[in-house]
Amino acid sequence: MTEFKIEINRTPEKKQKPAFDNLEFGKNFTDHMFEMDYTAGRGWHDPRIVPYQPLSLDPAAMIFHYGQSVFEGLKAYLTIDKEVLLFRPEKNMERLNKSNSRLCIPEIDEELALYALKELISLDRDWIPNVEGTSLYIRPFVISTEPYLGVAPSKRYKFIIILSPVGAYYKEGINPVKIAVQNEYVRAVKGGTGTAKTGGNYAASLKAQELASLTGYSQVLWLDGKENKYIEEVGSMNIFFKINGEVVTPELNGSILEGITRNSVLELLKYWDIPVAERRISIEEIYQAHADGQLEEAFGTGTAAVISPIGEFFWDNKKIEISGGITGELSKKIYDTLTGIQKGTAPDPFGWSVKVEKKEAAGIK
Amino acid sequence: MTEFKIEINRTPEKKQKPAFDNLEFGKNFTDHMFEMDYTAGRGWHDPRIVPYQPLSLDPAAMIFHYGQSVFEGLKAYLTIDKEVLLFRPEKNMERLNKSNSRLCIPEIDEELALYALKELISLDRDWIPNVEGTSLYIRPFVISTEPYLGVAPSKRYKFIIILSPVGAYYKEGINPVKIAVQNEYVRAVKGGTGTAKTGGNYAASLKAQELASLTGYSQVLWLDGKENKYIEEVGSMNIFFKINGEVVTPELNGSILEGITRNSVLELLKYWDIPVAERRISIEEIYQAHADGQLEEAFGTGTAAVISPIGEFFWDNKKIEISGGITGELSKKIYDTLTGIQKGTAPDPFGWSVKVEKKEAAGIK
Repeated sequence: MTEFKIEINRTPEKKQKPAFDNLEFGKNFTDHMFEMDYTAGRGWHDPRIVPYQPLSLDPAAMIFHYGQSVFEGLKAYLTIDKEVLLFRPEKNMERLNKSNSRLCIPEIDEELALYALKELISLDRDWIPNVEGTSLYIRPFVISTEPYLGVAPSKRYKFIIILSPVGAYYKEGINPVKIAVQNEYVRAVKGGTGTAKTGGNYAASLKAQELASLTGYSQVLWLDGKENKYIEEVGSMNIFFKINGEVVTPELNGSILEGITRNSVLELLKYWDIPVAERRISIEEIYQAHADGQLEEAFGTGTAAVISPIGEFFWDNKKIEISGGITGELSKKIYDTLTGIQKGTAPDPFGWSVKVEKKEAAGIK
Repeated sequence: MTEFKIEINRTPEKKQKPAFDNLEFGKNFTDHMFEMDYTAGRGWHDPRIVPYQPLSLDPAAMIFHYGQSVFEGLKAYLTIDKEVLLFRPEKNMERLNKSNSRLCIPEIDEELALYALKELISLDRDWIPNVEGTSLYIRPFVISTEPYLGVAPSKRYKFIIILSPVGAYYKEGINPVKIAVQNEYVRAVKGGTGTAKTGGNYAASLKAQELASLTGYSQVLWLDGKENKYIEEVGSMNIFFKINGEVVTPELNGSILEGITRNSVLELLKYWDIPVAERRISIEEIYQAHADGQLEEAFGTGTAAVISPIGEFFWDNKKIEISGGITGELSKKIYDTLTGIQKGTAPDPFGWSVKVEKKEAAGIK
C-alpha cells in the first residue's frame, strides 16, 4: 500500500468513553478526526489527524446556504482475535467520488482517503466497541467552505472523517419494522441527486418520515417521482422482496442510491444460487403477490442496520403483513452471513473484509 | 410595531469597507450579524446581534450531513434622501416559515425576525452602498446544529442574518443572457423540495449549470421532472414569456419556487392591464411561438437580479433568438418600475416598500 504523508496532532487529553453496552447510534465521537482542505488552484492539501474539535466556519460558508456536500458511511469491527476489520471500504471511497462528481466537488484520491481512514482508526482503536451488535461507525464527508453567496460550485472544501462507536441502529434489534408507503412526498427523481449521497436527499425525506411516525410507522417506502407507482427505497435503505422463491430489488434507475449492502446481498444470493433479479417493481405488484400468497419476505439493506426485515406495509388504506410479522428465514440468513463476514466469524469467500494492520497503527508518531 | 428584546454586542473594531463602486455579489459582509438559537423543549431563544464572526460547530452537526437548512434573500436600498427601504420583507419571512415547514424546522416568529432584521440594518447602516445598481443584500438562514448522525429532524438550530453590500448580480448589467435548456438534469419534482428555499435544490442545480457554462450559456432552463416537457424555472429564477401581447409564466405546480419578484411582476402587470396568465407552458410551445413570430420577450425574475432578460434559448440542437437579442421593451419597463419602487424613485401604489425607521437605529444601545 502506498504511504501518504499525514500530519498527526494527538489530543493532549483523551475523552471519557461511553459504556459500550448501551451505545446510541451516532451520538458519541472518538478522540481524533481526519481533515484535509481543498483550495481551487492548489488541489487537496494538508491531510492531517487532529483532536476531535469544532469546525470554525464563516457564516457565509456555502455549506450553510447551497447544500453542496456529500458523505459516506461504513463500519469497523473488532474480531474476537482483536483484529480490526473494514467491510469493502474501497467501495465507499469509489461512491464518494461518484457523489462528488454529481455535486461538482473535486475528486479525492481514493487510496489516500482509505489510508487516512485506517490511520485514524488505528489511533482511536480503543474506541472500537467489543460488545455484540456494536461497531465503530465511520463517517467521511465533504463540505463546501468558501464564504460566498453566489450560486456556483465552491472554491474551497473540507474532507473530514469522524468516528462514532455505535450500538445496533434499531434499538429493538433485528425485528421487522412497519412501513408506510408514501404517495405525496418524493425522495428523488431521475436527473436529480438520488444516486448521490448528499445532504439534500436526506433533508427532503424528513417530512414524510415525520408523517409516518405520527401514524405509528417507523419508515417510509418511497415510490418513483414520475408516476408514483414504482418502488424506489425504504427510509434511507435499498429494498428487497422475496416473491415465490425469487428475490427482486429495484434496478439502478438513476434515482436510487447504489447501496454497498445492496450490492453485497446481490452477490451473496448469486453465490447461494438463489434466483435474483434487478428490475422495476410496482407497489401494485407487491400487493398482488401478497394477495396471491407469494410474497414471502421483504427487507431493507443499508450500512447502519445491515438488514432490516419488513413486517408490514400500509398503502392506499390497505395493510398487509409479511412473513407473519416475524423475521423471514432468508432475511435472517443474509443478516447472519453478512454480519458474520463483517465481524470475522464467518468465512469470507468474496474477500470483502479488509484488515486494518497493526503496523499502520504503530507507524503513527 | 411590537418591541422585542434583542441583546446587542457591538464589534470593538469596525472593518474596512470595500469600494462601493466595484462590489462583487455576496463576497463582503458587514460588521454585525443576528443570531438566535433553537433547542427542543425550549423553543427559539437568545436573539442577539453580535460582531460578524465564524460559527463554531461540532463536525457531527447535522447541517454538514443531512442538509436540513433553509434561507431567504432580500435587499435594503438607500434612497436619495438617505432613507433605508426594504422590499416586501414580510413576504420573505412568510416564505421562510413555509420552507421551514417542508424541512421540519420549527417555525420562527415572523415579526421578531423582521424586527431583528431592521435592528441589524440600522446598526450596519453605513454599509448600505449608495452607488447606482448597488444595495445591501440580506441573507436570513436556518441551519441544523445538533451533533447527531441519525436521520431525523435536528433538535437544535441556529437562525442567522448576515448582510452583504452588493453590486449588480450580473456584472454586464441588465443585458440579455443566453439560456441552455436542460434535458438530462432536473431541478425538482412535485413532492420534492422545489417549493422550499433549501440548500439541496441549489446543490442539485450546479452540475447542469457547469455543463451550460462549458458551452457558452450563462444559465439553465429547467424542465419538469416527470415529462421533461414543461418549463419550470431559469437558473435560480422564475421565468416569464411575452407571447403575442400576453405575458405567461409557469403556474405554481408544487415544484417551482414561489418567487416574491414573480408575484410582484404579476401584480404590476395586472395593475397595468396587461393580459397575464399563470399556466403550464411547454418548451415546444415557446419554440412554436418563436416560429410563428409571436414570441416577443422572455425574462427571469429573482431578488438578486430583479429582472434578467433572455436573449437566446438553445434546446434540442436548435437556437432561437428573442427580441433581436436585446432587452425587450416590457422587460425594461418592469425592471425600471420595480427597481424604482425599491429605491424610492418611483411611486409605490402597492405599499411594497417598508422603511427602516431611524428611531429604531437610535434605540440600539
